[in-house]
Amino acid sequence: MAVTFDIKTKCKQTQARTGCVHTPHGDIQTPVFMPVGTQATVKAMTPRQVEDAGSEIILANTYHLYLRPGHDLVKEAGGLHKFMAWDKPILTDSGGFQVFSLGALRKITEHGVKFSSHLDGSKHMLTPEKAIEIEQALGADIIMAFDECTEYPAEYERVVLAMERTHRWAQRCKDAKTRKDQALFGIVQGGCFADLRVQSAKAIADMDFPGNAIGGLSVGEPKKKMNDMLEVTVPHLPETKPRYLMGVGSLDCIIDGIARGVDMFDCVLQTRIARNGTALTKQGKLVVRNAKYARDFSPIDSECTCYTCQNFTRAYLRHLIKTNEMLASTLISIHNVQITIDFVKEIRQSIELGTFLQYKNEFFANYRV
Amino acid sequence: MAVTFDIKTKCKQTQARTGCVHTPHGDIQTPVFMPVGTQATVKAMTPRQVEDAGSEIILANTYHLYLRPGHDLVKEAGGLHKFMAWDKPILTDSGGFQVFSLGALRKITEHGVKFSSHLDGSKHMLTPEKAIEIEQALGADIIMAFDECTEYPAEYERVVLAMERTHRWAQRCKDAKTRKDQALFGIVQGGCFADLRVQSAKAIADMDFPGNAIGGLSVGEPKKKMNDMLEVTVPHLPETKPRYLMGVGSLDCIIDGIARGVDMFDCVLQTRIARNGTALTKQGKLVVRNAKYARDFSPIDSECTCYTCQNFTRAYLRHLIKTNEMLASTLISIHNVQITIDFVKEIRQSIELGTFLQYKNEFFANYRV
Repeated sequence: MAVTFDIKTKCKQTQARTGCVHTPHGDIQTPVFMPVGTQATVKAMTPRQVEDAGSEIILANTYHLYLRPGHDLVKEAGGLHKFMAWDKPILTDSGGFQVFSLGALRKITEHGVKFSSHLDGSKHMLTPEKAIEIEQALGADIIMAFDECTEYPAEYERVVLAMERTHRWAQRCKDAKTRKDQALFGIVQGGCFADLRVQSAKAIADMDFPGNAIGGLSVGEPKKKMNDMLEVTVPHLPETKPRYLMGVGSLDCIIDGIARGVDMFDCVLQTRIARNGTALTKQGKLVVRNAKYARDFSPIDSECTCYTCQNFTRAYLRHLIKTNEMLASTLISIHNVQITIDFVKEIRQSIELGTFLQYKNEFFANYRV
Repeated sequence: MAVTFDIKTKCKQTQARTGCVHTPHGDIQTPVFMPVGTQATVKAMTPRQVEDAGSEIILANTYHLYLRPGHDLVKEAGGLHKFMAWDKPILTDSGGFQVFSLGALRKITEHGVKFSSHLDGSKHMLTPEKAIEIEQALGADIIMAFDECTEYPAEYERVVLAMERTHRWAQRCKDAKTRKDQALFGIVQGGCFADLRVQSAKAIADMDFPGNAIGGLSVGEPKKKMNDMLEVTVPHLPETKPRYLMGVGSLDCIIDGIARGVDMFDCVLQTRIARNGTALTKQGKLVVRNAKYARDFSPIDSECTCYTCQNFTRAYLRHLIKTNEMLASTLISIHNVQITIDFVKEIRQSIELGTFLQYKNEFFANYRV
């Protein structure tokens, strides 16, 4: 088994737990936040900065790397770890969500998804087998099954079809996989219908993947719906396997997910809003580009120990933003990634100390969405 | 005296020498290459990366910082060192070259230069006194006199007028300066006329600045002209003071300048061409974005010890360039800055070993412009 999972502590009041995922490239303490390196780079950060921010695992995108530079090239380079100079664990998605996001540019059949590249319109086909071929060439420690996501809101019948296809595709992914040093995670779908989520969780759990993901959430539904879906889904996913909530997220969604038994999270939010001049804090977002920070000589967060907060003021960061200096994106990305990782670390500690619920309540008392 | 200079070794065959400039923020081994941080940031690099690349001093631009965020704000922040989190020496130019570069947007009188901001067209006036006021607010270790540069080619009469004004303005700068912890360097002008260069060098030398710069070169003249001007200028600048060739440059111009007795260099080339996907090597430029490097899994320079060359291949850098990832600019800037600094370090060692001329000949035997 390429990936194993130990549970360390379980919260008595919630579904929260701490644990450790063991992979060929090292251990990951869970719950964990995984920064996203879509095109084999966490945007605006060097691997050293990603590591210094505390990252134990990053995510990369199969769809993007398949199109550029191509999985064959990455394989020839010695795999994704070597190509991007990141020797800790990597997780690759399957491209399912990306081709779903192409909308009119894709056509789904039982065989797979025909799509036009968002770059040049060239025609491509992703199937469960092709996704696994690409993910095996990339060589991440954890690879994801090729699934069919549904938009929100979506008709019940449509969600049923996508969910059932996701299950058949999960099996095809399992059958196609040959590398022993990678762990394939299954993905639960079912939209925002509780009965379908239960059905999907059971079906995916039955396939005995070394880890299980919850997909198709954070696609526009209200936050309460997402939490409701987690509450009905998680109990049907094996306790002994890591649970991964895909594409989430913000600090509030992360802590809510952890309370509901989720172990792994990924999101582009941290680096995306950084490039737009917005920083995360445990009190909510701080729009550094705002004029009111022009002469604010305090750091983004005076309690944060990241490189940015230890060295730079809001006034300086705002100056970089206003003058279109790339360093703004780098410095705010460093902060946003580290504060999220430190937040999850504090949550782990609170679970181990038995004070998670208290930590969570205090967090929400101070947090503005 | 805010800045003192010791000569360590003198080359027997050329005017090259090694030395050390002592400043309130630390020592600078000369010859030295100074990366440029125009807007209080060396573009695409964190101060830590600039330091890791071996930089002992950086340059910042008075014109840009005066316009944004304003020198008052930088002063309020505790000065430029603190504002940009760089605690080693800083040199600021005076804005003279920048307003000269505005062309039709500026009007020069004996009092100073009226100009329209390149950002919003707003009207401003820079005078010797104003430049010193701004530079004192910024608080660099070395500040430059406000000078009048001339374009190439320029009529003799016009160059005479600009040179004479530069001398009068140098005196006004000296008179305006009040801070004792900053060193004011004078600037020699005189275009590409040998007699004017001699006249200007003598006039500036007579004012007894703690360092002397050679301005108005690298403005479009042939490289041979620049070297000729250095040869006539340097002998008239005091041997006991550091000599700074402004806005230069490329590896070949640096080594040629050192051979002619120059101690200090600055240039935007390193970071500018990095953002365009071009790397410097001691054999010439390497256009990393070229298709021929798509599957080249060697570093930019296999002998370079920079973070980029130690971790990343040409294929990966090209991928970052093709996918418009900011990390490309960062990684190639790191390389271009470090290879220049390492090159100057090797030159220093060769001067100390008495092998400079041999080093220089070997360099040019392998270098393609």
